[in-house]
Amino acid sequence: MKLWEKGTPLNKQIEAYTVGNDTILDQALIKYDCLASIAHAKMLAKIDILTEDEAAALEKELHNIIELDTKGKFTIRPEQEDCHTAIEAYLVGKLGDTGKKIHTARSRNDQVLTALRLYYKTQLADTKDLATEFGKIVEAFAKKHENIIFPGYTHTRKAMPSSVAMWANAFVDAMQDNQPLLNAAYNLIDQSPLGTAAGYGVPLELDREFTKTELGFSRIQHNPIYTQLSRGKFESSILHALSQVMVDLNRLASDLILFSLPDFGYFELPAELCTGSSIMPQKKNPDVLELLRANYHVINSLEMQLKTIPANLISGYHRDLQLTKEPVMRTFEITNSSLSIINLVFEKLQVNEANCATAMTDELYATQKVYELVEKGMPFRDAYKKVAGDIE
Amino acid sequence: MKLWEKGTPLNKQIEAYTVGNDTILDQALIKYDCLASIAHAKMLAKIDILTEDEAAALEKELHNIIELDTKGKFTIRPEQEDCHTAIEAYLVGKLGDTGKKIHTARSRNDQVLTALRLYYKTQLADTKDLATEFGKIVEAFAKKHENIIFPGYTHTRKAMPSSVAMWANAFVDAMQDNQPLLNAAYNLIDQSPLGTAAGYGVPLELDREFTKTELGFSRIQHNPIYTQLSRGKFESSILHALSQVMVDLNRLASDLILFSLPDFGYFELPAELCTGSSIMPQKKNPDVLELLRANYHVINSLEMQLKTIPANLISGYHRDLQLTKEPVMRTFEITNSSLSIINLVFEKLQVNEANCATAMTDELYATQKVYELVEKGMPFRDAYKKVAGDIE
Amino acid sequence: MKLWEKGTPLNKQIEAYTVGNDTILDQALIKYDCLASIAHAKMLAKIDILTEDEAAALEKELHNIIELDTKGKFTIRPEQEDCHTAIEAYLVGKLGDTGKKIHTARSRNDQVLTALRLYYKTQLADTKDLATEFGKIVEAFAKKHENIIFPGYTHTRKAMPSSVAMWANAFVDAMQDNQPLLNAAYNLIDQSPLGTAAGYGVPLELDREFTKTELGFSRIQHNPIYTQLSRGKFESSILHALSQVMVDLNRLASDLILFSLPDFGYFELPAELCTGSSIMPQKKNPDVLELLRANYHVINSLEMQLKTIPANLISGYHRDLQLTKEPVMRTFEITNSSLSIINLVFEKLQVNEANCATAMTDELYATQKVYELVEKGMPFRDAYKKVAGDIE
Amino acid sequence: MKLWEKGTPLNKQIEAYTVGNDTILDQALIKYDCLASIAHAKMLAKIDILTEDEAAALEKELHNIIELDTKGKFTIRPEQEDCHTAIEAYLVGKLGDTGKKIHTARSRNDQVLTALRLYYKTQLADTKDLATEFGKIVEAFAKKHENIIFPGYTHTRKAMPSSVAMWANAFVDAMQDNQPLLNAAYNLIDQSPLGTAAGYGVPLELDREFTKTELGFSRIQHNPIYTQLSRGKFESSILHALSQVMVDLNRLASDLILFSLPDFGYFELPAELCTGSSIMPQKKNPDVLELLRANYHVINSLEMQLKTIPANLISGYHRDLQLTKEPVMRTFEITNSSLSIINLVFEKLQVNEANCATAMTDELYATQKVYELVEKGMPFRDAYKKVAGDIE
Repeated sequence: MKLWEKGTPLNKQIEAYTVGNDTILDQALIKYDCLASIAHAKMLAKIDILTEDEAAALEKELHNIIELDTKGKFTIRPEQEDCHTAIEAYLVGKLGDTGKKIHTARSRNDQVLTALRLYYKTQLADTKDLATEFGKIVEAFAKKHENIIFPGYTHTRKAMPSSVAMWANAFVDAMQDNQPLLNAAYNLIDQSPLGTAAGYGVPLELDREFTKTELGFSRIQHNPIYTQLSRGKFESSILHALSQVMVDLNRLASDLILFSLPDFGYFELPAELCTGSSIMPQKKNPDVLELLRANYHVINSLEMQLKTIPANLISGYHRDLQLTKEPVMRTFEITNSSLSIINLVFEKLQVNEANCATAMTDELYATQKVYELVEKGMPFRDAYKKVAGDIE
Repeated sequence: MKLWEKGTPLNKQIEAYTVGNDTILDQALIKYDCLASIAHAKMLAKIDILTEDEAAALEKELHNIIELDTKGKFTIRPEQEDCHTAIEAYLVGKLGDTGKKIHTARSRNDQVLTALRLYYKTQLADTKDLATEFGKIVEAFAKKHENIIFPGYTHTRKAMPSSVAMWANAFVDAMQDNQPLLNAAYNLIDQSPLGTAAGYGVPLELDREFTKTELGFSRIQHNPIYTQLSRGKFESSILHALSQVMVDLNRLASDLILFSLPDFGYFELPAELCTGSSIMPQKKNPDVLELLRANYHVINSLEMQLKTIPANLISGYHRDLQLTKEPVMRTFEITNSSLSIINLVFEKLQVNEANCATAMTDELYATQKVYELVEKGMPFRDAYKKVAGDIE
Repeated sequence: MKLWEKGTPLNKQIEAYTVGNDTILDQALIKYDCLASIAHAKMLAKIDILTEDEAAALEKELHNIIELDTKGKFTIRPEQEDCHTAIEAYLVGKLGDTGKKIHTARSRNDQVLTALRLYYKTQLADTKDLATEFGKIVEAFAKKHENIIFPGYTHTRKAMPSSVAMWANAFVDAMQDNQPLLNAAYNLIDQSPLGTAAGYGVPLELDREFTKTELGFSRIQHNPIYTQLSRGKFESSILHALSQVMVDLNRLASDLILFSLPDFGYFELPAELCTGSSIMPQKKNPDVLELLRANYHVINSLEMQLKTIPANLISGYHRDLQLTKEPVMRTFEITNSSLSIINLVFEKLQVNEANCATAMTDELYATQKVYELVEKGMPFRDAYKKVAGDIE
Repeated sequence: MKLWEKGTPLNKQIEAYTVGNDTILDQALIKYDCLASIAHAKMLAKIDILTEDEAAALEKELHNIIELDTKGKFTIRPEQEDCHTAIEAYLVGKLGDTGKKIHTARSRNDQVLTALRLYYKTQLADTKDLATEFGKIVEAFAKKHENIIFPGYTHTRKAMPSSVAMWANAFVDAMQDNQPLLNAAYNLIDQSPLGTAAGYGVPLELDREFTKTELGFSRIQHNPIYTQLSRGKFESSILHALSQVMVDLNRLASDLILFSLPDFGYFELPAELCTGSSIMPQKKNPDVLELLRANYHVINSLEMQLKTIPANLISGYHRDLQLTKEPVMRTFEITNSSLSIINLVFEKLQVNEANCATAMTDELYATQKVYELVEKGMPFRDAYKKVAGDIE
């Protein structure tokens, strides 16, 4: 039975279409929804809507659900639509009337937002940790190979001398500059939506400060209409930050794929990281790098999804917004596993010093020759033209 | 064991990252891969690489796999990566050396493309059928309400008299014009890739005409490099056609959501198609229409995925291209279920004739007044200004 | 004075924001709007709304406008908003009351659509011609170098022997398969919208068959609501077809950039097609190829614009739809100039036979060795493993 | 003559294709490029590459260029490609050998990045000011109408009582939360790239701290490879922040369009902000709001452009990246003019108190009835069902 059922059963085909894969996605949210419900129950006791005993009973059963979920034993049935219904149904089953009181002073709208934000905050913290780890591993890699010179490219053509350290540290700096973006997204969502109900508040005096503190939010999102307008918009700031992480991995993977090509051979990927071909026995393919590269495009398109779904809609909740949940979950999964993978790759990656040295051909020093002339007093543009003329 | 394994085991984390959810997605391809393998085995017998007995044995076991799959009993294990490996492993297990011969003269590349195109063709045929059914249902709806006049809007404001029939038939015509686009996509992919191997052919004389005919393709895609360049590109033409279907449903849903709002009340959605609110007991919400509307954005972003993944890559297969499989599967699932749902909605949709009549206010006839003056000989622009002045 | 002005002047800031760059874009439409107006005037005479003399006078002045426009002497003033207003104003200025009659039985909505479709048809014809020319030039290039073998790559690693002819012909085939997509887009838009007015027809008996024939459309788009629903949607089919052309150029440019890199050196771009660096005198950069590659992304995003602007809107015209004009114009400009450029590139492109030969290293023949064992009777998978073992 | 020209003239068709509309876009950069060149010249004097006299002469002429540009008298000729070449050419023309020295120790790459970042910072500051002004204007609007109750909607259906103040303040809060995102983008780009040359530094000891301070950057972007990797990536963070501003305007415009529809009539847009129809004399259309709404989609697609152009490219400059300039310029133009326009709209917008009152129908109070029962001790879910039953 759904939270809103009033007699007329929902057409089965409509049920399947509207529920979609929420019952699967919501598995990740059970814990956060229980934590939010515990804080909510305590607050209801504080404002005398529940007795202390009722709140304690609810808290105990909500902890039981978390426990069951940890063991993979709390399931959401399709006709229940989502984890929120399954949890309320469990509480009513265990506690009768007390269970029927848990939804007082909230709507599924603010309930969902609360659970999602708690989930996002945990995931973002993981991303930040993995990004920090990336910095350490790649910095160590740069240090290890700090004396190796190799060609720098522009327009996919040899340009000027570069070094493995300069190259690796470029990505360290890039990843470090992603941290403020991750923080900006984190701070944006770090507002407690609990108590805004369906987007227009509830006709009760709530203690929103209490639930905010209980749940570890840094502030309250006061305006209920704004809270609903945030759906999709806040998520898009998260995805922006994650896409900035992923674009770095995309460019990095592009470098590694080309520079580990035997014709260049600056880098070498050990066999245990390579895959093969079903027909060509000689192949050692960098599939893992190719998927790192391609996954940037996947999350980019998921961000576009988030940005277009809420557009052109009037304010207030619409079911459209439910579809913003999956792209964020998927993007966290991709970004965090991609960071883990690139960290592994850097632990195994080899630099071939001999190939790097061989590649340092004359043309890479043309600019240096210009500057030798400049130091002798020739105006830059004349020196440039003289060296250019000598090369022709 | 993977098709390409040669001793060094693949790092487990890399395996998980590269395999992704292929083992789940590939369940839908098992049947098509077996059908393609049967045609391939027959061809190998025809060109004397297999004996007739070997081909017959392979055909029998491949039919067994299809049978097992129908019952949900053919599973793909993660370390097998995909259905192609699981199928070859099954054949080797059952038939020994004969199983080891099935991959002669092909690569996983052309094998995957063949299975996918057979799958796409089936799905596209379903889309076309559902679109045709839509035409019939909506045309009947238009006919049923053909005498009902209601307001036509521009800029979300009342403009001129319209009718339920003109409105409904607009979508009939739109859907009909989608058929040539679906056909164009179908014709584009209706080329047999089998025999192009890993993108550079094989050093054997194949009978590609035979497999083409056996599998029901209308022609052979001769150039192996082009065959690989098609990956993602062909899929994008499919998704374009599907998105043209979905944009019609998006606009239709937008109309229905607004015009079934009680303030307008031109249309009524029966209770069995509506969902409710967890907090507001009075609500009858058109969630199904909102998801129809939102799903257009989902598939749009999946099309963008397909269009960006192959970009900037040199010719020849890259693992990136593997990620083009899921967006197409997902888009077919969304489009075909959305068409089914809208067909159901139109069978249940009510028109409220009284509300339509009440809404036919004076302003809708202003243009008619202009034309009455025009018929009396006043130049159009003067007549327009006269009526405008009368309204002010 | 705008067509719709009724006294209250439009706020100047609003005027600037709403007019945007229409006055510039519309320069390209003047001719087509005049041609459509001529057909419309003739039709009005045919149904006795204009006298034959009035129609002849209008026709003469409309031809004068086309003539002025050819010389760059017909300008659209900002306060006129667009070419349609400028043209009507010119006619009223020259012909008085007769000019005020030209807008009888039409709205700016169907007028704009008619002019745009005529413009699109001309542009699409150019695209088709340039694509055909591409086929001829690249086929000749393939023929010229048909004996040159060079490496085929998968995963950006050497795979199997390929040839310059196989490579070039891949793009010939790809471009040929774009033609049916261009035709599908052409056929879709080849419907006369003239007479549908603002999306709800006009209360007059028009001869739509006459204007359709006069303007060279192959059929009439009967339903006025559908006609408005087509805005953006039809354009998206055009952009899809153009993006399929551009993705081929993107992949082609990617190949040429890498394979003309001196480390490979299979292809050589003559100096007159290369640009240089402001600091490094030795550089010969393939900027033209890089812009070909990047322009695919530009038009992709323009297609996304077209696909999202009309979404979630109810049926009937909205000013939002006006923004679909520029992306199409821009995409035609990019695609057609890109085709011209690649045709020029292929006329100048050199193949370095020696570099191709040098690159044909042993590993490229591993699959051939497998097939030699297969021909001696070894099952494929065993032969594969044997050759793999020999390589290790 | 281009900065890199060495004898062989560039093919004219290639020149037109590669230069594109840079000569037009670069008009906005002339001032910033001159300011950066002044700082650069002073630094060159400080490290004894220029004499003080030479630096002073350059500074004087660069100020002259700024002056000329202010008067619209500094033009960039197509064969000069961009403002950087035009400026160097001017300096050489005026100062001979001294002019030829200005490009010492820099490349066009870091020169362009420096000019662009100075330009971006100015534009972002404008956006922040306009967003702050929006807050003030809308807050005043909320205060002015603070006692007006009107319906709150979910699923485009009446839900619960809302108020004009709650509604308007939702957008105030949303815009306020955009400020940290604008700041995050600002801080990200606030790094001096000058001195990183073509992405691999120059073989000279520069005083990068000096130019950083001179130009008002808060820190130096040290790693030259990272500096190049930032191209497009930094811009995408800017566009993300701007798109968060624009999505608020999109939702706001959607509300205003619907709620100013006479059938609702909560808001009224004065005639001077409305446009009309060429055929229907009664129409007062909210074109300005529709374009606000649509422009969100335009900038969204421009952000997608920025995110896809650099993808899959190896590190180091590519000409592709040049195409990231226009989308940012365009987005600033759209966002800043849209903010100006919405501020104007809010100054003129009327609230119709009577229509708001009439719309407060019974159903909006259903949740309140539930809470009356809850206060009497009925469990929430039972109260919900009782009220629901009463409504049926």
